Amino acid sequence: MKYPNGKKNIQTSNKTNTSNRGMSLEQDIVQTNLYYLAEKIACIHKKPTPIQIVKVDYPKRSAAKIVEAYFKLPSTTDFNGIYKGKYIDFEAKETNNSTRFPFSSIHKHQIEHLERVLNLGGIAFLIIRFNNKNITFLINASDFIYYYKNTDKSSVPYQWFCDNGYSISYNYIKPVDYLKVVDQILEEKNEK
Amino acid sequence: MKYPNGKKNIQTSNKTNTSNRGMSLEQDIVQTNLYYLAEKIACIHKKPTPIQIVKVDYPKRSAAKIVEAYFKLPSTTDFNGIYKGKYIDFEAKETNNSTRFPFSSIHKHQIEHLERVLNLGGIAFLIIRFNNKNITFLINASDFIYYYKNTDKSSVPYQWFCDNGYSISYNYIKPVDYLKVVDQILEEKNEK
Repeated sequence: MKYPNGKKNIQTSNKTNTSNRGMSLEQDIVQTNLYYLAEKIACIHKKPTPIQIVKVDYPKRSAAKIVEAYFKLPSTTDFNGIYKGKYIDFEAKETNNSTRFPFSSIHKHQIEHLERVLNLGGIAFLIIRFNNKNITFLINASDFIYYYKNTDKSSVPYQWFCDNGYSISYNYIKPVDYLKVVDQILEEKNEK
Repeated sequence: MKYPNGKKNIQTSNKTNTSNRGMSLEQDIVQTNLYYLAEKIACIHKKPTPIQIVKVDYPKRSAAKIVEAYFKLPSTTDFNGIYKGKYIDFEAKETNNSTRFPFSSIHKHQIEHLERVLNLGGIAFLIIRFNNKNITFLINASDFIYYYKNTDKSSVPYQWFCDNGYSISYNYIKPVDYLKVVDQILEEKNEK
């Protein structure tokens, strides 16, 4: 895999990220996706958590009730969908660690999935929030995977995100307006 | 929505569909997707069934056990992913009815979802299998939605699928080789 030529995305002002809203990153993304959907901008959904169902009861006159089930490891990322005709795929994670993002937060097969999407011409990225810093980054999957494959460390320093990520702006209607960053990335690609 | 100009896809020979394998359509598609994935042709997955979790037990030294949960209505289709850089989205249904496919088999919001995908430039379709006829059709979502919106009937006759659908060939490795049909559709689009 080639590393994008010397691209260093200087972190933009994160003035827009200063509100402490107590919402999880996932909730913020789901809300943003609802806005995109309502405005016919994109159709991006969170995949349901995969569950292994073992036993289901069928009580009379009521809905089937699952009485034994277990969480399964997801084989793909959490979010995917369509934007401008293109396939979008990303994983979202938040961390309470202020200085580093541990690789253990992301499953190996999720990274492999992002790589497959890239190789098939899709738009793949990660959205990573540092809760204590109150900042949310979008990271191109290619950059993240390059780092992942070329380090012997078990985590990524915060500064790496500042140097290589795009900070995502916050607004009330679109708490994580990541498609604004995707537009910027698509423009940069076209300029090359 | 415009109806594609007089397009009538004459049903091709379904000689390849004659094996009775006792596998469900969903299993066949999942197996085909595994082939596409292994061959790096496409990355298309079935979405997990959405489940409303009510109660989880955490037994000592074992995995979290879900002890009360219910099935939720899916808000999108079952399958989506990427092929040739494009966003692919489809719903798969089989019926034991030999003469008609009832609209009740598909949720209204799934049809709305397919329409959204079309409007955003994605490739959207349905895969419908008539079990008793041993034939599996791919139907462009645009054709299906047009019919759905312009009929007062509660089902689609089998003959409509023969006139408007593409029969999907079977082979052992790719039980439902639907991307072969997608290629054909993409070619037809380019010719226009």
